[in-house]
Amino acid sequence: MGVWKVRMIILGIDPGYATVGFGVLKSEGREPVFLSCGAITTQAGRPMPERLLQIADDLERLILQFRPQVMAVERLYFGNNVTTGIGVAQARGVILMTAQRHGLSIYEYDPSQVKLAVAGYGGAEKRQIMEMTKRLLKLKAVPRPDDAADAVAIALCHARSATSLLSRG
Amino acid sequence: MGVWKVRMIILGIDPGYATVGFGVLKSEGREPVFLSCGAITTQAGRPMPERLLQIADDLERLILQFRPQVMAVERLYFGNNVTTGIGVAQARGVILMTAQRHGLSIYEYDPSQVKLAVAGYGGAEKRQIMEMTKRLLKLKAVPRPDDAADAVAIALCHARSATSLLSRG
Repeated sequence: MGVWKVRMIILGIDPGYATVGFGVLKSEGREPVFLSCGAITTQAGRPMPERLLQIADDLERLILQFRPQVMAVERLYFGNNVTTGIGVAQARGVILMTAQRHGLSIYEYDPSQVKLAVAGYGGAEKRQIMEMTKRLLKLKAVPRPDDAADAVAIALCHARSATSLLSRG
Repeated sequence: MGVWKVRMIILGIDPGYATVGFGVLKSEGREPVFLSCGAITTQAGRPMPERLLQIADDLERLILQFRPQVMAVERLYFGNNVTTGIGVAQARGVILMTAQRHGLSIYEYDPSQVKLAVAGYGGAEKRQIMEMTKRLLKLKAVPRPDDAADAVAIALCHARSATSLLSRG
């Protein structure tokens, strides 16, 4: 039997309506390679529909630029601030729909799954996740801003989960 | 001074991820006229991104069919079921973004504003709202399903609020 190398571009997304973090990795077998990261930001005080449209348009540009096959996004839980939560969920809906429109496969991960896949245990601290992300991707520094670092960690979680799934077969 | 008649098509929307109610009215001065109502429904058990994309596509078709200038939508509050709330907020984000993309003016109303505008007081029962909607629009029956009736009431709220704003001038 031959060895199949699955090459894919993974877009990790940390959703929000003020800031959407993104991270792009190339995954070829065991070694995910960092391609890009950053954040889509929308202007405070602008009407929500305008901010949501900007997120859709900017995300679309990212998808056309990097041609990812996969989007990885964190599962959403609501904390204390329900008003912020509504905004984040609205933005997340726009993000999921845009990825679906462009034919991406969409994967959701719990925060604990991201911690487990990146740092080796589900109770890892945010700082440890960031350091492990940096080390695993051979980066010179932890990605900035935090939303971008979170998005890279989510993409990395998918790359490592997908690898382990493949090596099970 | 001449009298200006503002003619507009209003799309009222009751957001959801399983069912999106819609109602379309033509408003020309004081007498809003019923054009259409119904519901976009998505299939239970399908992945959320697929359902959100269907909502975007179906809403887009409605907008191209009726060419509304205005979308009126209820403000979102979270009740007990936060999980359902996340789904509704995600769908609402897609709806707001799609309307913005097509250049509609978007207005939000509190449930109490809808009750006040349609039934004359903010504490009206759902049944009274439906009966008043039917009477004001000279319909033979209350619109079905409930989501469509709610959407018609929201559109009617906007038509009556906009009229009263205009007649103030």
